[in-house]
Amino acid sequence: MAIAAAEKASTRAFGPGIALSCRECGQQYDLTPRFACEFCFGPLEIAYDLSGVTRADIESGPANIWRYRSLLPVPENVAELPNMNPGLTPLVRADRLGAELGLRSLHVKDDSANPTHSFKDRVVAMAVEAARAFGFTTLSCSSTGNLAGAVGAAAARAGFESCVFVPAGLEEAKIVMAAVYGGKVVAIDGNYDDVNRFCSELIGDPAGEGWGFVNVNLRPYYAEGSKTLAYEIAEQLGWRLPEQIVVPIASGSQLTKIDKGFKELVQAGLVPDRPYRIFGAQATGCSPVARAWEAGHDVIQPVKPDTIAKSLAIGNPADGPYVLDVAQRTGGSVEHVDDTEIREGINLLARTEGVFAETAGGVTTGVLRKLVREGRIDPEAETVVLNTGDGLKTLNAVDAGVTATVKPSVEAFTAAGLA
Amino acid sequence: MAIAAAEKASTRAFGPGIALSCRECGQQYDLTPRFACEFCFGPLEIAYDLSGVTRADIESGPANIWRYRSLLPVPENVAELPNMNPGLTPLVRADRLGAELGLRSLHVKDDSANPTHSFKDRVVAMAVEAARAFGFTTLSCSSTGNLAGAVGAAAARAGFESCVFVPAGLEEAKIVMAAVYGGKVVAIDGNYDDVNRFCSELIGDPAGEGWGFVNVNLRPYYAEGSKTLAYEIAEQLGWRLPEQIVVPIASGSQLTKIDKGFKELVQAGLVPDRPYRIFGAQATGCSPVARAWEAGHDVIQPVKPDTIAKSLAIGNPADGPYVLDVAQRTGGSVEHVDDTEIREGINLLARTEGVFAETAGGVTTGVLRKLVREGRIDPEAETVVLNTGDGLKTLNAVDAGVTATVKPSVEAFTAAGLA
Repeated sequence: MAIAAAEKASTRAFGPGIALSCRECGQQYDLTPRFACEFCFGPLEIAYDLSGVTRADIESGPANIWRYRSLLPVPENVAELPNMNPGLTPLVRADRLGAELGLRSLHVKDDSANPTHSFKDRVVAMAVEAARAFGFTTLSCSSTGNLAGAVGAAAARAGFESCVFVPAGLEEAKIVMAAVYGGKVVAIDGNYDDVNRFCSELIGDPAGEGWGFVNVNLRPYYAEGSKTLAYEIAEQLGWRLPEQIVVPIASGSQLTKIDKGFKELVQAGLVPDRPYRIFGAQATGCSPVARAWEAGHDVIQPVKPDTIAKSLAIGNPADGPYVLDVAQRTGGSVEHVDDTEIREGINLLARTEGVFAETAGGVTTGVLRKLVREGRIDPEAETVVLNTGDGLKTLNAVDAGVTATVKPSVEAFTAAGLA
Repeated sequence: MAIAAAEKASTRAFGPGIALSCRECGQQYDLTPRFACEFCFGPLEIAYDLSGVTRADIESGPANIWRYRSLLPVPENVAELPNMNPGLTPLVRADRLGAELGLRSLHVKDDSANPTHSFKDRVVAMAVEAARAFGFTTLSCSSTGNLAGAVGAAAARAGFESCVFVPAGLEEAKIVMAAVYGGKVVAIDGNYDDVNRFCSELIGDPAGEGWGFVNVNLRPYYAEGSKTLAYEIAEQLGWRLPEQIVVPIASGSQLTKIDKGFKELVQAGLVPDRPYRIFGAQATGCSPVARAWEAGHDVIQPVKPDTIAKSLAIGNPADGPYVLDVAQRTGGSVEHVDDTEIREGINLLARTEGVFAETAGGVTTGVLRKLVREGRIDPEAETVVLNTGDGLKTLNAVDAGVTATVKPSVEAFTAAGLA
């Protein structure tokens, strides 16, 4: 891939980031908008110089992901630049859910508190800084919905044009949220994997000139945003790693980056080393990674998604094999729950902890319940379950409405048997 | 009103709160679930001992409203109790919106980042602590929608029963969000003012025994939560008061409490004294306070609401007269914008700052624009505009959708004129 001169940026634009490094063969590259290794086609990720990071420095930073700027490929002054500034979302002590499931110590990391109410604000915030460094003028993405909203909002805030691509038939809330910021929202007649292929084609075309596709040509930068989930969880637990964590799988990137984040914290001396187990969660209707795990395969057989968990409906997950590695290495596993269990998971989390999750949160909560029931998670170990999205975006997934409609009198209220 | 022994709580349950004090006649009462003065029927509010509060103490506190616990009627250990822990929402530096409107220094206080995505989480968090202190077992409220969701979630988190009352015909998202947490949601055949009257009736009835109505019998505690908006804005500006602020008006309570918060910060020596102007914002279709302001009256003529800004649709706002006082005293005013201007306000805020507001945010943004256009706000002064809710809850208020649907090929994309 030819890198235009204008796309080169000073190293200082990426703070502690020093190079792109191939995850397969280790080949290193300059920090450019490149995402695959020229030699082995392996995915690229950021290599860092993490010397000199301290807890005190982090703790005195802003109440968002930029407190971790010395662990991210962003400039030192990032907090001064126009960005959505996501992160530092609540780590909810989930005693009531824990008691109901039979877990001694449970927290919910609730990422619905982000600006557009999904974890995608974290990754997009990183991509915005990369796009700025590379001089891109339009932000784009392929999206199952949440990412489209996050890109639209971030582009508006930072003064980029935007054009996002989604599969036709998405939830109305996700469409409106993507479109309200004034950018283009193009529905592609197909599923997410078709949208993704289309975007890859567009990158090589003059029509995509000057466009930063946050999850394609900016993917190495973008993906690092998920590490901040790991950093925040560790800091919010009092600077220690959790012993068990349940993470949803769409492309699988988030799960692998949480693992990377935990490892970096240990490497930088910010937390003591401690064994942790990472559990992946998929919807049965789109569970290629869970099926490979069950079968003991190390390749992923793509599937055609059919599930209410549309934000996880990636039938050909790019990071699937790496997810299998992480689950294997940490002593975790990859599980799936069906649409009924997803709905039950949403209701369970809402009823016990007041967290209204989108379907992805129903998947993680459902998988957590299943792991406990089947005795495959340690009920005594410190456990975290992720909610990565917001129930307001998937209203149709829940069956909840008014208990009754009555006339405005106590008599009517009592007569309706509601007192 | 007789106060049951069980409803008395130790003073320590209310931290620096020392008494209830009548806003009209100054009569003081013990900290009990009482909301109106026995002598003059004036509203009661909390009186404090604010000695010994420091910036350092606040800055070392949690990243939520409990960092201000020494300015609130809550126990010292409040951060350890099950509560939604709202607050410390972003103060967004709104350079793009400011430039478009012609304001030199503008920030948006974005309260959609709260757990249930409205400022109501702040007031409910206070009411939960009061309900706990008084031994109530059910949380209730009259609500235009946002409050119902906040109460449902907080009750689930803290282990209360809940039963909330809303006017029939509310937005679907608000209904689902209120109901998903497992409590009762009762629609009242009438408008918000009917719901409110019904709740007052229920408090005196055996059917309401043991119920804490967050915005009725717990109102003095509840209402203090709005002060945290003032505290956060001042702290986020670097410990100074803004010179101008635009605040939505429903009951008017929030606006008066922001004023109270600013005054307390000065009184406690946390910020330097500085003149500030408070502007109230209403929807034309429910603008009793703005109309009284225009007419120079000091009483409010109730109206029958007819506006898309349902969260502000209180036709008989309890704190209306106090709002007029604050606007008068600070050199502000009370303005209104119609439904078209509200929609434009939502789009303007989304397009320039990536903040997707509910209709109430459209009202404040619309009023800000109007104030600038009519030369009634100082374009050089440091200004803050509040967004108190989330666009996902009022999707029907915006007209936004896909730009186009195309087949998954660059050719189709280009042919559609989208490149």
